[in-house]
Amino acid sequence: MNPTTTASRLTLHPDRLLPVDPGTRDVARRIYAEVAGLPIVSPHGHVPPAWLAQDTPFADPTSMLITPDHYITRVLHASGVQLSSLGVGRGELSPQESREAFRIFCRHWPVYRGTPMRLWFETQLVEVFGIDLVPSAGTADAIYDAIAAWIARDSSRPRALMDSFEIEFLATTDDPCDDLAHHRALADDPSFARKVVPTFRPDRYLEPATAAWVGHVDRLAQVSGQDTGTYAGWVAAMEDRRAYFKAHGAVSTDHSHRDLGTEPLEGPEAERLYALARRGEISAPDGDRLRRHMVTEMVRMATEDGLTMTLHPAVHRNHHTPTFDTYGADVGADIPIAVEVTRALQPALARFGTHPDLTLVVFTIDETVYSRELAPLAGFYPSLRIGVPWWFIDAPDAITRFRAAVTESAGFTRTSGFIDDTRAFLSIPARHDMARRLDSGFLARLVAEHRLSEDEAVETARYLVRDQPREVFGL
Amino acid sequence: MNPTTTASRLTLHPDRLLPVDPGTRDVARRIYAEVAGLPIVSPHGHVPPAWLAQDTPFADPTSMLITPDHYITRVLHASGVQLSSLGVGRGELSPQESREAFRIFCRHWPVYRGTPMRLWFETQLVEVFGIDLVPSAGTADAIYDAIAAWIARDSSRPRALMDSFEIEFLATTDDPCDDLAHHRALADDPSFARKVVPTFRPDRYLEPATAAWVGHVDRLAQVSGQDTGTYAGWVAAMEDRRAYFKAHGAVSTDHSHRDLGTEPLEGPEAERLYALARRGEISAPDGDRLRRHMVTEMVRMATEDGLTMTLHPAVHRNHHTPTFDTYGADVGADIPIAVEVTRALQPALARFGTHPDLTLVVFTIDETVYSRELAPLAGFYPSLRIGVPWWFIDAPDAITRFRAAVTESAGFTRTSGFIDDTRAFLSIPARHDMARRLDSGFLARLVAEHRLSEDEAVETARYLVRDQPREVFGL
Amino acid sequence: MNPTTTASRLTLHPDRLLPVDPGTRDVARRIYAEVAGLPIVSPHGHVPPAWLAQDTPFADPTSMLITPDHYITRVLHASGVQLSSLGVGRGELSPQESREAFRIFCRHWPVYRGTPMRLWFETQLVEVFGIDLVPSAGTADAIYDAIAAWIARDSSRPRALMDSFEIEFLATTDDPCDDLAHHRALADDPSFARKVVPTFRPDRYLEPATAAWVGHVDRLAQVSGQDTGTYAGWVAAMEDRRAYFKAHGAVSTDHSHRDLGTEPLEGPEAERLYALARRGEISAPDGDRLRRHMVTEMVRMATEDGLTMTLHPAVHRNHHTPTFDTYGADVGADIPIAVEVTRALQPALARFGTHPDLTLVVFTIDETVYSRELAPLAGFYPSLRIGVPWWFIDAPDAITRFRAAVTESAGFTRTSGFIDDTRAFLSIPARHDMARRLDSGFLARLVAEHRLSEDEAVETARYLVRDQPREVFGL
Repeated sequence: MNPTTTASRLTLHPDRLLPVDPGTRDVARRIYAEVAGLPIVSPHGHVPPAWLAQDTPFADPTSMLITPDHYITRVLHASGVQLSSLGVGRGELSPQESREAFRIFCRHWPVYRGTPMRLWFETQLVEVFGIDLVPSAGTADAIYDAIAAWIARDSSRPRALMDSFEIEFLATTDDPCDDLAHHRALADDPSFARKVVPTFRPDRYLEPATAAWVGHVDRLAQVSGQDTGTYAGWVAAMEDRRAYFKAHGAVSTDHSHRDLGTEPLEGPEAERLYALARRGEISAPDGDRLRRHMVTEMVRMATEDGLTMTLHPAVHRNHHTPTFDTYGADVGADIPIAVEVTRALQPALARFGTHPDLTLVVFTIDETVYSRELAPLAGFYPSLRIGVPWWFIDAPDAITRFRAAVTESAGFTRTSGFIDDTRAFLSIPARHDMARRLDSGFLARLVAEHRLSEDEAVETARYLVRDQPREVFGL
Repeated sequence: MNPTTTASRLTLHPDRLLPVDPGTRDVARRIYAEVAGLPIVSPHGHVPPAWLAQDTPFADPTSMLITPDHYITRVLHASGVQLSSLGVGRGELSPQESREAFRIFCRHWPVYRGTPMRLWFETQLVEVFGIDLVPSAGTADAIYDAIAAWIARDSSRPRALMDSFEIEFLATTDDPCDDLAHHRALADDPSFARKVVPTFRPDRYLEPATAAWVGHVDRLAQVSGQDTGTYAGWVAAMEDRRAYFKAHGAVSTDHSHRDLGTEPLEGPEAERLYALARRGEISAPDGDRLRRHMVTEMVRMATEDGLTMTLHPAVHRNHHTPTFDTYGADVGADIPIAVEVTRALQPALARFGTHPDLTLVVFTIDETVYSRELAPLAGFYPSLRIGVPWWFIDAPDAITRFRAAVTESAGFTRTSGFIDDTRAFLSIPARHDMARRLDSGFLARLVAEHRLSEDEAVETARYLVRDQPREVFGL
Repeated sequence: MNPTTTASRLTLHPDRLLPVDPGTRDVARRIYAEVAGLPIVSPHGHVPPAWLAQDTPFADPTSMLITPDHYITRVLHASGVQLSSLGVGRGELSPQESREAFRIFCRHWPVYRGTPMRLWFETQLVEVFGIDLVPSAGTADAIYDAIAAWIARDSSRPRALMDSFEIEFLATTDDPCDDLAHHRALADDPSFARKVVPTFRPDRYLEPATAAWVGHVDRLAQVSGQDTGTYAGWVAAMEDRRAYFKAHGAVSTDHSHRDLGTEPLEGPEAERLYALARRGEISAPDGDRLRRHMVTEMVRMATEDGLTMTLHPAVHRNHHTPTFDTYGADVGADIPIAVEVTRALQPALARFGTHPDLTLVVFTIDETVYSRELAPLAGFYPSLRIGVPWWFIDAPDAITRFRAAVTESAGFTRTSGFIDDTRAFLSIPARHDMARRLDSGFLARLVAEHRLSEDEAVETARYLVRDQPREVFGL
């Protein structure tokens, strides 16, 4: 698509993302006004803790906004741009390379029409950088220079942004063997008032059929001081590291496997398969069986230490092998697959589903399970929460579909609260704002259809923004 | 969610559930006005026939409205309420226990926001009981007392309600071995003008791998006078009981298994598997194979006796084993699973799909099959009807999605007519009213989009309410 | 449904299919006005090339509009009409039979309410034939006579219609062994200015486990001059025929199998299975394995000859065996099944997904893959395009759902452009107009929600109609 449109000034309309019907929009505006200014709670995301611990200034516009954000780079890749020309998989960019990558992005601005990436980027341009230029070949340099000037200010460093963005609580995502030094530094720093906590993300230790697994559990042994030569030792090591994370403020563990299976193994079967895996001799199907047992073990631990357990299943990682070989993981080549919840979680829920200290949050990109499985499950099990739309479907129409799909059988109290799940630190306010607008619009429709009073809608909107994430993550 | 909203008076807005666009709403109002007052035909549901035969007064508000309604109790359970404290699985409640359970319900009123349970309950409060209080901790006792006073009236007994609700036709759901004494009593009573008929629900006789099956078919032998020691005898017994039900007014049979499979067995295989099952030696997979053959046999019988066959597949029953052990079945712990229709029904449809006397109605909670499988199938096979949304998706947004998903390839004439499928007798008018409003709204949108004239929309709305259920159930 | 509505004059409202909200409709009107008059590009469809080569006059209203259109006949069949009474599976109809079939159709007009078939037919009545009667028992003969009179005019012959419909480019669908004489005749005719090209549709040569396959590849050998006794020969024959098609103007190949699998076979396995198949001894599962390998071979060929590859998977063909036995294929008894894309296409995409000369377009009737699989895939792979809604879901609400499902992660530039996929030649303008209206409405909503400027929306609408099909099919 070759844009021919004359770029007018970029502005953010105060009614953006609100319902089009004027009466409904009026209601939505009033609801949104009540939640627009509430502080941000971000209980799951991927901001590097070092940025905050070291208050690292951002390097340049491209490495801040383009290179690390696979939401942005994947669409450019689909448009024929090489990932390398965006800085992906490379070290630091030269000033000229950085500027050139930014030009590529601006030239391709029309490919983001209709996507949330566009909305988030526009919001950052106007609200964070104070820029009113529409990205294009003609404006790329001016925008680049303005952002570079913004980066140079003290008020643009991560800690200052935590304040100006009003992020009250931020969870990062961390390896179980991480020493959490950055988190400790932040907690020990009396000048830093915001809460930044780690999240325990043990996936790689739960995939015994992968080549790197033996190395991972060896390292786990070193860090935990437990002998991971046996399954019992693995369990002890995991418990040790969870306790370590919890002591450093963690409120949750996060899990992402291909399926949600929780079928436990009987008797000594776990030890037997674990021993096979230690010798590198476990088959892929047995690796899956052992992994499902390990996940169930994690559920059991969660009932004991109270860490909320978030599940992000069913993504085919590194779908394009050559891209993985060249650029590594997390560059936009992960593709969702269908997921099954009802049968997969049944063993764990039969054992722990009514445990008062357990909170499981199931996220999905497969929208079909919202009305068919997740809402019915969360409408019965007190331990289960429906995660808000994630990744590819963290977007206006999808969020609206989500509320319409789950609310009718599970109501508003069984969802997770908004999670931004992002490493794009500067987009966090835009993402939370988007969710607040859309939930306000959804509630406004219920008001307009006389299914809810406006007072109730406002109360519910506040609950979703302010109370629900605190409740779900035990803050 | 702690409600802080001051409870204003509860009213039902005349435009509730109609489209928000003012122009479309005007059209919807006019369409709805033409069907709002039509009598109710309820060809599938779960009201106990004894209530009507004996005209049993309701005992108390809780055992009338809360305890038996798993739509209501499941959401409370998800909110941390013990089912036992709502009277589930217990005998009669003491007056104090009943009142206390009702208070729990009212305190949790906000958890129903956005659900149809709220809409149905509000409608009952205002239209059945004449109560204008919003449920809350503060109003619980007053509402309880008002309902109790209502119960005490003669006009509140089931038969009087059949009249005041204008329920012309009501089908119950019954075991094939039932003697249908209640139905006979009703039919023989010249003072009772309404039609109440049984439905033949033989599921338990078609699951040969379950532990209780041998006992069931033994009892079937006693009741039918057929020797169920052989498969041929089982077939004869089923035919006998279907004839008995038909003689007592039944218009349909109802079937709910995990899948929709109709693969027939070849030659003597059915007898062989049946013999295994009689000895309690059939495997689960063979049990499924025999069940699918038995279902096909039921389709064949339907072509002969003309009973409409309704299918409600793909629910994982009693998902939470401890709840089942404590409270038994049907308490809200049944969870849907994905369903497949195209291949599963192919054997039966290839044989009987164009039979002039066959009507199959397929219901689903898995919305994905509406546009992909059910509408294409019902848009070709004269014997197949698309069941309206069922159970978890019998709700405003889901009903609207349903019409949007099936109408474009199957039109309006290939659906089932509204079915309330409820044991909550007092909610029947609210449920039918909801469907009428939503179908009026859907039709109004087609008018507003100039896809249908308003005259046609009114005619179609009347057809859906008045003619379609009669056509589908042969009334 | 017995229509009682007095038939008023049939008119087409200028705002039909535009959004109901007045403000959004205003925007949609302006967007639509910019694309309504653009010429038609139809890169995939089923119009018989002989019609154009021979400029065959249409025979009569029924054989032009009813008999060959399975969208029309299937709904009548579901309504209890015998296909034979509509002329399906028979030779030429007598004048009386043709008129009688047309009466049946008109009497059943209400069954099409809410379907696109109604919209397309109405548009043809008004815009092609200049008829303003609503079909009914009372108007059937008058409509029939008016259409018959229209047929008799010179301006109603196919070539004249190509001009008056402003169809710039039309692709037909053809067997690899076809000599393409009609296409050659058209290309050689200096009096015919429009472009009509063949499409290579080799399905039957890729299903080695079907009974007719050996005969097909024998014929392929004759036509291509390659020895199809070996797999290598089959490959050479396919390459030969593709080159032949390309030389005759083909821009694409089309493929429709039950699944999208592209798992290649290792080493000599393809030759081994091919040899089995030649002897008629290949099993069904091995037939599928060989077919998936053959599909991958087609992808490889596409990277070499640049023919766009369209995939139309996951339809259970000839679902009703007795109908197939009596009437043959393509009479409305094909029923969709679920499809899986992410894993199925992974092998092919890992090898060829970033090849600069490859374009794969995946169509689906299974809407669940739009947001879950197709948009994520097309949002990463430059070679992959998301096909617009196809067959049962080429309809107003489904098209709107499609845009809402894919745009948020893939934008507008990753779709296919509109494809009518029809053999109903006279409905082509109505189908393209419908898509233009709906895309205008979708874009207008984004404008009304302040997600897009109106200038951008107009530019995008033009891109979708004018540029995207040219880009995707390399015109």
